[in-house]
Amino acid sequence: MTTFATFNPPQRLLMGPGPINADPRVLRAMSAQLIGQFDPAMTQAMNDTMALYRSVFATENEATFLIDGTARAGIEAALVSLIEPGDTVLIPVFGRFGHLLREIAERCDANVETCEVPWGRVVDPAMIEEAILRTRPKLLATVQGDTSTTMCQPLAEVGRLCREHDVLLYADVTASLGGNTFQADAWHIDAVTAGLQKCLAGPSGSSPVTFSPRAVEVITRRKSIEAGLRADGETAAATRIRSNYFDVAMLLDYWGERRLNHHTEATSMLYAARECARIIVEDGLAETVERHRLHGEAMLAGVRGLGLVVFGDVTHKMNNVVGVEIPTGVDGDRARGQLLDQFGIEIGTSFGPLHGKIWRIGTMGYNARTDAVLTTLAALEQVLRRNGHLTPHGGGIDAALEVYGSTAS
Amino acid sequence: MTTFATFNPPQRLLMGPGPINADPRVLRAMSAQLIGQFDPAMTQAMNDTMALYRSVFATENEATFLIDGTARAGIEAALVSLIEPGDTVLIPVFGRFGHLLREIAERCDANVETCEVPWGRVVDPAMIEEAILRTRPKLLATVQGDTSTTMCQPLAEVGRLCREHDVLLYADVTASLGGNTFQADAWHIDAVTAGLQKCLAGPSGSSPVTFSPRAVEVITRRKSIEAGLRADGETAAATRIRSNYFDVAMLLDYWGERRLNHHTEATSMLYAARECARIIVEDGLAETVERHRLHGEAMLAGVRGLGLVVFGDVTHKMNNVVGVEIPTGVDGDRARGQLLDQFGIEIGTSFGPLHGKIWRIGTMGYNARTDAVLTTLAALEQVLRRNGHLTPHGGGIDAALEVYGSTAS
Repeated sequence: MTTFATFNPPQRLLMGPGPINADPRVLRAMSAQLIGQFDPAMTQAMNDTMALYRSVFATENEATFLIDGTARAGIEAALVSLIEPGDTVLIPVFGRFGHLLREIAERCDANVETCEVPWGRVVDPAMIEEAILRTRPKLLATVQGDTSTTMCQPLAEVGRLCREHDVLLYADVTASLGGNTFQADAWHIDAVTAGLQKCLAGPSGSSPVTFSPRAVEVITRRKSIEAGLRADGETAAATRIRSNYFDVAMLLDYWGERRLNHHTEATSMLYAARECARIIVEDGLAETVERHRLHGEAMLAGVRGLGLVVFGDVTHKMNNVVGVEIPTGVDGDRARGQLLDQFGIEIGTSFGPLHGKIWRIGTMGYNARTDAVLTTLAALEQVLRRNGHLTPHGGGIDAALEVYGSTAS
Repeated sequence: MTTFATFNPPQRLLMGPGPINADPRVLRAMSAQLIGQFDPAMTQAMNDTMALYRSVFATENEATFLIDGTARAGIEAALVSLIEPGDTVLIPVFGRFGHLLREIAERCDANVETCEVPWGRVVDPAMIEEAILRTRPKLLATVQGDTSTTMCQPLAEVGRLCREHDVLLYADVTASLGGNTFQADAWHIDAVTAGLQKCLAGPSGSSPVTFSPRAVEVITRRKSIEAGLRADGETAAATRIRSNYFDVAMLLDYWGERRLNHHTEATSMLYAARECARIIVEDGLAETVERHRLHGEAMLAGVRGLGLVVFGDVTHKMNNVVGVEIPTGVDGDRARGQLLDQFGIEIGTSFGPLHGKIWRIGTMGYNARTDAVLTTLAALEQVLRRNGHLTPHGGGIDAALEVYGSTAS
C-alpha cells in the first residue's frame, strides 16, 4: 500500500465566485468533538440551527433545517419533494444555474417550461407573468443570484405574481444569501435552499433550507400514500417522493418533535452551519449584506480603475461577485495561473458562452474584507502588466480606497 | 433576533453503534483552511483519497471516490445509478438496514424480492442461491454488517454465487468496513458504499464508494441516452438516472480526468475522509481489523463477565458492536440516561422488534481502545447496581482484562 502524509493545503486567498476561505471561527467550530445524534445537546444544537436559519432566511417557517449535502443536494431535495411526475414547472433561465434547475426538474419528470434571457441580464417580471399565464405552472423555480453571470434576479415582484396566480415559488439562493437582501416570507417564497460556501463563510457540504406551510402541505400530502394503501376514489396524484435521502416529508419528522431516525446527522457540518448563521446573526443580517455591498462596490470600482470592462447589467449585479472582460491579448487561464502560483490568489474562470472571455472575482463571506480586496487588485495589476497589458499605475487601489474613504470601512 | 453562543458540546465517550468519537487527527485535518475546487492541490487531494480508499476497500477499481453526503447518500447513489425501473433486485434482509435497502430500491421502482431471516441471524448462502434461481435478479443488494442486530453477513460465498449467476452484487459496508475483513475484489462485489462514522473514526457526512468495471459499464450506459436522442431500434431500457446529485456516471467525470464540474466538493469532509483512510493505511488494514477484533472480544467477555446475556448468533457478530439483553427489572432507557448524564458515556438503544429489549455497545474506530472498554464496563456495573441489578463485583473488568492479558494489547 502507498502511504500518504497528512494533507497540508497551501495557503490561498480565494477571490473567485466560491468556494471561498472559511471564517476561522467556522473551522474552529468544526474541530469540536462529536456527540451522539439523539444526545440532548445534539438535538438542542439542531434546534438552535433551525432558529438561526429562520433569521438568516427572514422567515417564520417552522420547516427550516439542513440537508446533509452540498448546495446541489438542497436543490434536488426541494425539487424532488415538490415535483410530481407530469407537473408543469416554469424556470426563468439567465445563466448556468437556471439550466441546472431545468436539468433536475426534468429528471423529476416535470413538464419543464422556461423563459430565457441572454447571459448578463435578469428576467423582466412582465415576461415571467406572461409565461405563467401561458404555461400555468404548479411551481416556478428560479435562482436568485447566478454566479455564472453575476446577476441577481429581483424576486419580490416574482413572489407577488406567483401568489396572485397560485403558483408555488422556489428559489436557490446559494450564491446570494447573506450578501444580498433576501426575505423569504415578505417575498412569498415557498421553498428556499442555500449552501455555506459563498457569503455564509463556511465549507461546502451542508445546505440550509426552508419551506413555507404551503410547501409543507404539498410535500406531506405525498408522505404516506403508497401503492396499495390508497382509498377508492382518492386521487392518485400524490405520488411517493422518489428519493429517500431527499424526502423532505421524512426529514421534517427527523428535525421535528418526533425525531424519527433517518440519516446519521453530519455532525461536524452541523457545527459549521450553526456557526455560519451564528456569526451573521451576531453581526446582524442587514449589516452583513451592507458589508458585502461595500466591499463589492470597492472591487467594482477597483477593476474599473484598472481600466477593465465589467460584464453584464451592473444595476442587477450581485454584491458579492463581479465579471470582468479578459483584455484582448491576455491569456485568461495563464494569468489566473500566475495569480495562483505567484500570489496565492484564486479568481474564477467562466462557463459556457463566457468561457475564455470573462473572469469572475468574488468578495464574499470571510473574504469581504478591505485587505482581501486591495491585495487582489494590487496583484491583478502586476499580473496584467507582466502579461503585456498596461493599466493605470495604482488605478485599482486608488478607486477602491476612494470607496472605502467615503464610508466607515 | 435571538443570539446564540458558540456551541460547546459536552465531552462524551460514544460507545453506541455509531456515530463514535472522531479520531483527533481527523478533527485536526478538518480544521485546515479551504482551497479552490480545481486547485492542483485539491485535485491531488482527491486523487490521494481515491487511492487510499482503494486500499481500504481492497480493490483495484478506478471508480473509487466519495459521495458528498452521509452513508445513506452513498446507498442511494449506488442504487439509483444501478437500478432502472422494473429491474428485479434481490435483498437479503436480516435487520433494519436490509429494510432500508428495500425501501430505497422500491423508490427506484425496482421489482424488489427479499429473503428474510429472524433478527440475530445471518442468511445462509443456500437460501440466497435458491432466491437467485427463483427471482433471477439483475442486482443483489445486501448489507455486510447490520448494527440493528450486530450481525455480519459472510459475503465471499454470496459474491461467488452472484458471479456464477451473472448477478450484480452491491454491499453496504457502512457499519463494518475497517472493523471486519472485507475484500471488494476478491469477493466479486460490484458496488460498495460506506460512511466515516463507524470503524473509520470520522464524522458522518461523506460516503466512500467503489464500483467495479462491470458496474461502471451498467451505469455509464445510462449516461447519454436521453429521450429524443435514442436511435431507432436502440433499446429504451437504458433510462436516464433519475437523480442529478447521485448520478454516478456524472460523478465519474467529476472525479476522473475530465474534471467536469458537478457539485462543489465538500472540502472539509474530503479532508476528513482522506485522513480516516490515511490512518488505516498507515496502521495497516489487517492490523486495524485485528484491533477491532481484540477490543470487541474484550467487550464481549466483559458484558458476559457482568452476567449479561448476549444477543444473536455470536459466531457471526461484527467485531465492533455487541447486543446485550436488558436485565429484567431494569428500565433500559433510564439506565442509558444515567450512563450519559453521570458518566458521559453513551451506549445504544435498539430499533423495531428489539426496542426496549437490547442495548447495543460499540467498540469501534477511535474508541476501539482498552481504556474505553474498561471505563464503559466499570460504569455499566455501577449503573446496573444502582438500578437494582447486582452483577459479579468486577466481573466485567476481570473478564476483559483476561482477554487483554493473553494478547499484546
